[in-house]
Amino acid sequence: MDRRSVLTGAAGLAVGAATFASPAIAKGKKELKMVTTWPKNFPGLGTGAQRFADRVTASSGGDLTIKLYAAGELVPPFESFDAVSSGTADLYHAADYYWKGKSAAYNFFTAVPFGLTANEMDAWIHHAGGQELWDELGSQFGLKHLLGGNTGVQWGGWFKKEINSLEDMKGLKMRMPGLGGDVLNEIGANALALPGGEIYPALQSGAIDASEWVGPWNDLAFGFYKVAKNYYYPGFHEPGSSLGIGMNSKVWEGLSKPHQALVQNAALAENNYMYAEFNARNGDALKTLVTKHGVVVRKTSDDILNALGAASGQLMADVANTDKITRKVYDSFIKFRKNAISMAKYSDEAYSKARRLPFKYGG
Amino acid sequence: MDRRSVLTGAAGLAVGAATFASPAIAKGKKELKMVTTWPKNFPGLGTGAQRFADRVTASSGGDLTIKLYAAGELVPPFESFDAVSSGTADLYHAADYYWKGKSAAYNFFTAVPFGLTANEMDAWIHHAGGQELWDELGSQFGLKHLLGGNTGVQWGGWFKKEINSLEDMKGLKMRMPGLGGDVLNEIGANALALPGGEIYPALQSGAIDASEWVGPWNDLAFGFYKVAKNYYYPGFHEPGSSLGIGMNSKVWEGLSKPHQALVQNAALAENNYMYAEFNARNGDALKTLVTKHGVVVRKTSDDILNALGAASGQLMADVANTDKITRKVYDSFIKFRKNAISMAKYSDEAYSKARRLPFKYGG
Repeated sequence: MDRRSVLTGAAGLAVGAATFASPAIAKGKKELKMVTTWPKNFPGLGTGAQRFADRVTASSGGDLTIKLYAAGELVPPFESFDAVSSGTADLYHAADYYWKGKSAAYNFFTAVPFGLTANEMDAWIHHAGGQELWDELGSQFGLKHLLGGNTGVQWGGWFKKEINSLEDMKGLKMRMPGLGGDVLNEIGANALALPGGEIYPALQSGAIDASEWVGPWNDLAFGFYKVAKNYYYPGFHEPGSSLGIGMNSKVWEGLSKPHQALVQNAALAENNYMYAEFNARNGDALKTLVTKHGVVVRKTSDDILNALGAASGQLMADVANTDKITRKVYDSFIKFRKNAISMAKYSDEAYSKARRLPFKYGG
Repeated sequence: MDRRSVLTGAAGLAVGAATFASPAIAKGKKELKMVTTWPKNFPGLGTGAQRFADRVTASSGGDLTIKLYAAGELVPPFESFDAVSSGTADLYHAADYYWKGKSAAYNFFTAVPFGLTANEMDAWIHHAGGQELWDELGSQFGLKHLLGGNTGVQWGGWFKKEINSLEDMKGLKMRMPGLGGDVLNEIGANALALPGGEIYPALQSGAIDASEWVGPWNDLAFGFYKVAKNYYYPGFHEPGSSLGIGMNSKVWEGLSKPHQALVQNAALAENNYMYAEFNARNGDALKTLVTKHGVVVRKTSDDILNALGAASGQLMADVANTDKITRKVYDSFIKFRKNAISMAKYSDEAYSKARRLPFKYGG
């Protein structure tokens, strides 16, 4: 999900943006142009963006149509933000951490190292002030933000050799872009930000020792198991990557109240449906990786996780100082995170452990 | 959420059903009558049902209005199923395990002891055959089913004394209705199905030794902490209680395609939003219970959990033999559950544990 990966094979399609203007209106109908940072129908993210568009179109009876442009079809993918901000396109479906160059605060609305899970992101954004902060941030750029999907906890990644202690991470060449890569460098590894398409050959040749990608479903499709058998859990870098819909504020305000409600429902519906798809497909894919492809699932050792945690805590404290809105978002995020950690321990974590006790259930 | 609890104070409002007929149509607009099993605006469940209704009404611009009737306003709450099946009402918002008398298969679409979590329910229903089975079940009764909310993992409950081993459960008088209560009885406790309003006095007088309810948010409101200080986790009986929307099939088929899409989006949106609310409010409420009210949070011992697990596994295997559709649903559920347990271990559980390592993060 890093910036360069999604460019692969898509940037070549980029066309001039100037020919595309504001919402087309014909016979009382409105058509919105949605740019995305995903290749057409990329499993999970691209298909989810398409479903969101289709949900709006279908539930409005075609009165409000969203036409999806895959990465590069209308504008280069990482110009999506500027295209929507300026009105060249009407909305985007993307991961908002791509816009960290606009404000570091955008990191918190997708995922940060050792941050919130998917459910916690939903809780923070819907019910603990996150949406209000996101809208305050967006107002600086003429954007209205909405949640529109989640990948869930990403995995630690594929390692050619076993990694048993923090010492084994020293000098390790690992593909991990973004803040996660910064954290890796802090603990002595050597992080590289290869595009998705270059990971497999780099692992095969030994140019890199390890790589993360997303999780079992997306990772299986790339075939990394053929060149690296050790699959480490858990990931620390993206514990619940939220996908975002950003709409030009004037376009948003120009929608009727029913159409605003309809777009909000469609976005939330897809937020639920996409995350559920990752959970369902990951379960099947993990089984395939282990039983058919001989992948060995291994736990990252606690000394490594603790060092990554300390480096993440320091990094995010530094990031908080970037600008005023980032500080405000960080403070809200950290406050919510503290309660969330307690609740996760007592609810889902404890239940998950209890369910793995040796009792018989279901043959 | 048991049958008798939600009746309290609501059944007296029941009115004759015969005066309410099929969807009102005026000036091309359609109004649907939604009955619920919740008191008006009961926090979480009642407010969520109201939001679902409002989402439909708002996004249709009033062309499709859903009018909510709280428990007992139109029909007694546990006649909601029959009312919708017969066409007296158009749809309901409820917990489908209330309809286990129609078919035991309905248990699986809300929650069963040691079953699926909220995220796993969504994954099974949306992407692993659950919806198709639910619709097959509903077709026997003239109903179309949709997911419409979740409470998340419920808590173990409030205990007047510490419970340290399986031996301490013998003879313990505990309020727990439904399948969870059956499981408790199997391990030697004495399960009672008191209505919600009777729990507090029963705990206070010593008529019962312990009681479960929902989780920190709803439990705080009932004040159980005043009469029982030991709050045990995790719950085993309802690990992710899904709320369901059931619509009369003829009413569903009579909706235009856009209105069907709009209802589906509104239901999924609320499915996401309600669960997020439980997660957010539970975090705050837990903090209040511990820091302001001196509640002691305790973990249920593994020997108790393992005995509860074994009894749950046996009970559900028995339930599976109730009828043909229940067997079919059980087989699908068990198959999905197996993969889900692995994924939970490697993803959310492992991440949750890693995040609690002693590193510093956020001051």
